[in-house]
Amino acid sequence: ATTFRASEHQHIRYNPLQDEWVLVSAHRMKRPWQGQVEPPLLKTVARHDPHNPLCPGATRANGEVNPFYDGTFLFDNDFPALQPDAPNPGPSDHPLFQAEAARGVCKVMCFHPWSDVTLPLMSVPEIRAVVDAWASVTEELGARYPWVQIFENKGAMMGCSNPHPHCQVWASSFLPDIAQREERSQRAYQSQHGEPLLMEYGHQELLRKERLVLTSEHWLVLVPFWAVWPFQTLLLPRRHVQRLPELTPAERDDLASIMKKLLTKYDNLFETSFPYSMGWHGAPTGSEAGANWDHWQLHAHYYPPLLRSATVRKFMVGYEMLAQAQRDLTPEQVRFQSTLSPWVPFVYHFP
Amino acid sequence: ATTFRASEHQHIRYNPLQDEWVLVSAHRMKRPWQGQVEPPLLKTVARHDPHNPLCPGATRANGEVNPFYDGTFLFDNDFPALQPDAPNPGPSDHPLFQAEAARGVCKVMCFHPWSDVTLPLMSVPEIRAVVDAWASVTEELGARYPWVQIFENKGAMMGCSNPHPHCQVWASSFLPDIAQREERSQRAYQSQHGEPLLMEYGHQELLRKERLVLTSEHWLVLVPFWAVWPFQTLLLPRRHVQRLPELTPAERDDLASIMKKLLTKYDNLFETSFPYSMGWHGAPTGSEAGANWDHWQLHAHYYPPLLRSATVRKFMVGYEMLAQAQRDLTPEQVRFQSTLSPWVPFVYHFP
Ligand SMILES: O=P(O)(O)O[C@H]1O[C@H](CO)[C@@H](O)[C@H](O)[C@H]1O
Ligand SMILES: O=P(O)(O)O[C@H]1O[C@H](CO)[C@@H](O)[C@H](O)[C@H]1O
Repeated sequence: ATTFRASEHQHIRYNPLQDEWVLVSAHRMKRPWQGQVEPPLLKTVARHDPHNPLCPGATRANGEVNPFYDGTFLFDNDFPALQPDAPNPGPSDHPLFQAEAARGVCKVMCFHPWSDVTLPLMSVPEIRAVVDAWASVTEELGARYPWVQIFENKGAMMGCSNPHPHCQVWASSFLPDIAQREERSQRAYQSQHGEPLLMEYGHQELLRKERLVLTSEHWLVLVPFWAVWPFQTLLLPRRHVQRLPELTPAERDDLASIMKKLLTKYDNLFETSFPYSMGWHGAPTGSEAGANWDHWQLHAHYYPPLLRSATVRKFMVGYEMLAQAQRDLTPEQVRFQSTLSPWVPFVYHFP
Repeated sequence: ATTFRASEHQHIRYNPLQDEWVLVSAHRMKRPWQGQVEPPLLKTVARHDPHNPLCPGATRANGEVNPFYDGTFLFDNDFPALQPDAPNPGPSDHPLFQAEAARGVCKVMCFHPWSDVTLPLMSVPEIRAVVDAWASVTEELGARYPWVQIFENKGAMMGCSNPHPHCQVWASSFLPDIAQREERSQRAYQSQHGEPLLMEYGHQELLRKERLVLTSEHWLVLVPFWAVWPFQTLLLPRRHVQRLPELTPAERDDLASIMKKLLTKYDNLFETSFPYSMGWHGAPTGSEAGANWDHWQLHAHYYPPLLRSATVRKFMVGYEMLAQAQRDLTPEQVRFQSTLSPWVPFVYHFP
């Protein structure tokens, strides 16, 4: 019988955090690509555009004028998917027609006053300011809501409609689907094995050294064993930390520095301003914050869509939408090799 | 207190088939769109291109020459994600590193010898031939594999690399993730309520008449109460049917006719050859086929990406990838209004 080799033989892998399987068929990278290529990156971005609602001094859709901020800047999303005061749909009349109330807040956070920078181009102290802003918004909204979702959609490919460096924060009165899954899995693991799932996972990855991308004094970045997106990564603190506000000053500085390195690696992969969606998952907050969340470990997911080049992406369609996620290279094959030397983030041309 | 109105007030809805929630924020349709627009549709497609590996008489990547087929044509995918003979990864050494064997077959099915037609442009008897081919491939591969996933990726936006009308069939030795979810939900519903989930659901939608798109003697098309994609639909037989091969000749003819109507409606929505991923879900097959699958009801899902026009899609990114699906208009607001008169499918220009 042939010996199993992950890079040659298709197999399925289990994601114990989100309770899902992925089909890994590495040999499929050999197929030629004749499908859609993405529009090339907009290479020129004005540093300041008074008509861009995210810029300092600009007027937003609701008529408010932005301050001339010089660090991060947090404001209410003018077109929020979640508002604080929606009425309750009332009891469902049938088990197949269940609706429930949803309340919340949507905010936008600018990372920097300039539109032509990205996180990897910012200095470590500037990124540290973003980390601090993430911690405070989690604290502020987490006082009222059980879930505070911080996420960044970067690049037009990820539906991001504005090049200005920013993220969003959606806080909700309900635990979203994926938070529920991670909650269930982490709780079950802790009760079965007596330690947090992601603490043991980070520990194992440090021992196995097959999927590590970056390590620092306080943080780890790795391609998870069960990654779905070609260059997906997981960012984990080494210490057991439940939520962003608990990070110490040293951990925050180190986070800023490892983020800069990771995002520079991403930019270098295909020599482009690397698109992705990323977001933080910490223990639930709000009135539930008093409960026991020892099984939770803070982490960030990076989900980048590119597969082969700056313009050829992985499509999660067909089989993936109807049956199961599928990937074309193994997580162990992912190499963040630089073609740029020395390693530098992607820089926009100046108009 | 304000009265709840789904079209004005955000809320969450439960998908009892796949055990997931969706956030519905209809008021969000008001926000302006400044994000990426999709490349315009390729309007000219040659009817026959000897270099297109899906065309009659063309030579494929593996050197095989296609017959001059004049109906449907089924062949092995030259770059299969699943092969019949992959070795087993062996036992996992840790609960967080679980891999399992995956075996299977990937096939491609051409619907028609011409590259410039789409299903809605084909005649009802021609579509009926596709239905028959779907039934036989399910029977053939279902004899060996527990799951046979038939799916069509239509349009470049859905990662489809070839305009020639075709679908794919991936049969696997494992029950894929989404099949597992649907299996669990339908089994639980049947044991709790004594009838198949989707039979009762179709029945309710016929009574409620709020989300029906098309009805015929043997079939229903509706926008599910829990739809995630703006124009998502569910296609259901009225009779309790577990798998495609069980369909009677009358049900197959009627299916061909309702598919032609549905896809014409889709083309008319934004006057384009409407992109989507669609696929069939029937009861598991293979060695398991003898078990009791009374809780299963055959159905097809249509997942189209477009939101506002032929070039503005819904991006399932950020919040959706990290927290929960979100939609911008309610399933009850989805109206398949035609601006073309009389209703006609989208026709490619002749080169
Ligand atoms: O097999 P194709 O059409 O080349 O590929 C397409 O469909 C597959 C099945 O849904 C996906 O895995 C691929 O990402 C997509 O590009
Ligand atoms: O709010 P934005 O950036 O306009 O919109 C983008 O991010 C949202 C949150 O991930 C998504 O729901 C939208 O589909 C996407 O286009």
